[in-house]
Amino acid sequence: MKKLINDPQNVVAESVEGFGWAHADVVAVHLDPTYVSRAGGAVAGKVGLVSGGGSGHEPLHAGFVGLGMLDAAVPGAVFTSPTPDQIAPALLAASGGAGVLAIVKNYTGDVLNFETAVELAEADDIEVATVVVNDDVAVQDSLYTAGRRGVAGTVAVEKIAGAAAERGDNLAAVVAIAERVIANVRTMGVALSACIVPHAGVPSFELTEDEVEIGIGIHGEPGRRRVPMESADNITEHLLTPVADDLALVSGENVLLFVNGMGGTPASELYVVYRQARKLLEARGVNVTRSLVGNYVTSLEMQGVSVTVLRLDSELTALWDAPVRTAALHW
Amino acid sequence: MKKLINDPQNVVAESVEGFGWAHADVVAVHLDPTYVSRAGGAVAGKVGLVSGGGSGHEPLHAGFVGLGMLDAAVPGAVFTSPTPDQIAPALLAASGGAGVLAIVKNYTGDVLNFETAVELAEADDIEVATVVVNDDVAVQDSLYTAGRRGVAGTVAVEKIAGAAAERGDNLAAVVAIAERVIANVRTMGVALSACIVPHAGVPSFELTEDEVEIGIGIHGEPGRRRVPMESADNITEHLLTPVADDLALVSGENVLLFVNGMGGTPASELYVVYRQARKLLEARGVNVTRSLVGNYVTSLEMQGVSVTVLRLDSELTALWDAPVRTAALHW
Repeated sequence: MKKLINDPQNVVAESVEGFGWAHADVVAVHLDPTYVSRAGGAVAGKVGLVSGGGSGHEPLHAGFVGLGMLDAAVPGAVFTSPTPDQIAPALLAASGGAGVLAIVKNYTGDVLNFETAVELAEADDIEVATVVVNDDVAVQDSLYTAGRRGVAGTVAVEKIAGAAAERGDNLAAVVAIAERVIANVRTMGVALSACIVPHAGVPSFELTEDEVEIGIGIHGEPGRRRVPMESADNITEHLLTPVADDLALVSGENVLLFVNGMGGTPASELYVVYRQARKLLEARGVNVTRSLVGNYVTSLEMQGVSVTVLRLDSELTALWDAPVRTAALHW
Repeated sequence: MKKLINDPQNVVAESVEGFGWAHADVVAVHLDPTYVSRAGGAVAGKVGLVSGGGSGHEPLHAGFVGLGMLDAAVPGAVFTSPTPDQIAPALLAASGGAGVLAIVKNYTGDVLNFETAVELAEADDIEVATVVVNDDVAVQDSLYTAGRRGVAGTVAVEKIAGAAAERGDNLAAVVAIAERVIANVRTMGVALSACIVPHAGVPSFELTEDEVEIGIGIHGEPGRRRVPMESADNITEHLLTPVADDLALVSGENVLLFVNGMGGTPASELYVVYRQARKLLEARGVNVTRSLVGNYVTSLEMQGVSVTVLRLDSELTALWDAPVRTAALHW
């Protein structure tokens, strides 16, 4: 294992500390317990947004803390849910008196630990609502989940619900917007290689030089099937088709097309995938009116990509376009 | 070789086409010959900025086309200089009547092909000045260079000279600003793994599981030395110390600290390196007043990192902070 780390036990703390120093204009970092909050603290009268999960998916979630998106993020150990003792102070730090929305990716550990943390926060008289993101069409139940997994679509939920909170929506309205995104966003991914969790030191699974895993999860969980390596255009079709079918997209609809790198894939390849995904959507008469391409929900250094499609209406489009000032998304 | 590509000969064209579709609000893509220009065309009365070089370093350079940075970018084949026939029309497309600055990384092929293209453009009565970026302290002469190589510091040159052009500086003034950045920016990198050029199909060099290459170039050219794998903190010291020494940094100075991922390194590791580089600078009494962390000048999927330091004064700081609206840098 060759990694730019020191003691594997300290990767998350050292990385988050460096992140805080690099982005001190946007975030404040807390190390005991570990969470990241907005520089300047909670915004009075605004619904607070909190997300979190295992580390190793950077920039998710700490990279999305800032104006127009999250108020706090909670990084667990690598590929390990954050503890309730970490999440609860983040919920408090995000509270501006108008309630807090917890955005949870659908993994059993995350869901349980957020539930416990919400109870702790509610004992402090903070109203907390929770939404669970489950955009991965690859599998119904999986190694770590009941129901579908929450993956790259989480970025859209955080961006759009964050914009709704920023414009002054109350908690119920922000929840409704988040649920509308969740109902209309779907993702599917592929892995060309595995990744190595620092404290494990060995790859989480093995792929031969000739095969890829279609439907991979963001922790390297098994997907739908292993298939021989094919052209980028064919692989993209294996990802885009189930996503578009599950959304039941019809001609004339508008969508956000989000091609997400898993960490070890060159940017040039992401745009080759984007090009084909867009051609396939246009062949269905679907209009790609917004785009996002880059490493946003990663699996350490895994080589691979996921394709996310979000059905847009005019309100979701306006909320997507609203200003955002975070370390990883900025416009 | 597992890559998300189709025919290796078409990677650049397909990737650039996808890039153009994804960022049509910012750029216009031309495929015959291949170059990328600002959406909306040249800005009348503004000095135009053009850069280019081999592909495989994305988002450099096309990702930096837009308000406040470049007016055009010219991607060659992977790790291969663009041809004069590609560069000349980009120089024309960037011309708003106030002259054009060509920003060239110091590689022999790039320097020669830009020289020829400049002669072609000047035959069309466009005034073109050229600056050559040579920030890599690792080696004096190398496989592809006479003198030092141009690497990640190019981002700072393009950002700051771009801001000077945007505020209305004339060509001589923009050249002077670019030269001031070049005189004050230094970089050194390390590779943990090689990368595979698509049309080659095999790694460009080999490193054992226990060694890293200190002073690597962005095409995998040999660096200063191969050393056994060490902690991130030690490796960072091997990079930062020669950079800071070459700049002759003294206590009380302000700098931009830029930690650049080579393509296959997780974001979390970049922040571990950033943290240590910042500690080392602060131990010298140097103030890190601006920061950039991410994949900006890559070598396909290479695992590795480079550390860049730019000595700042108040004018360079203000130009760094000026608005920028490109696919890869946006504030």
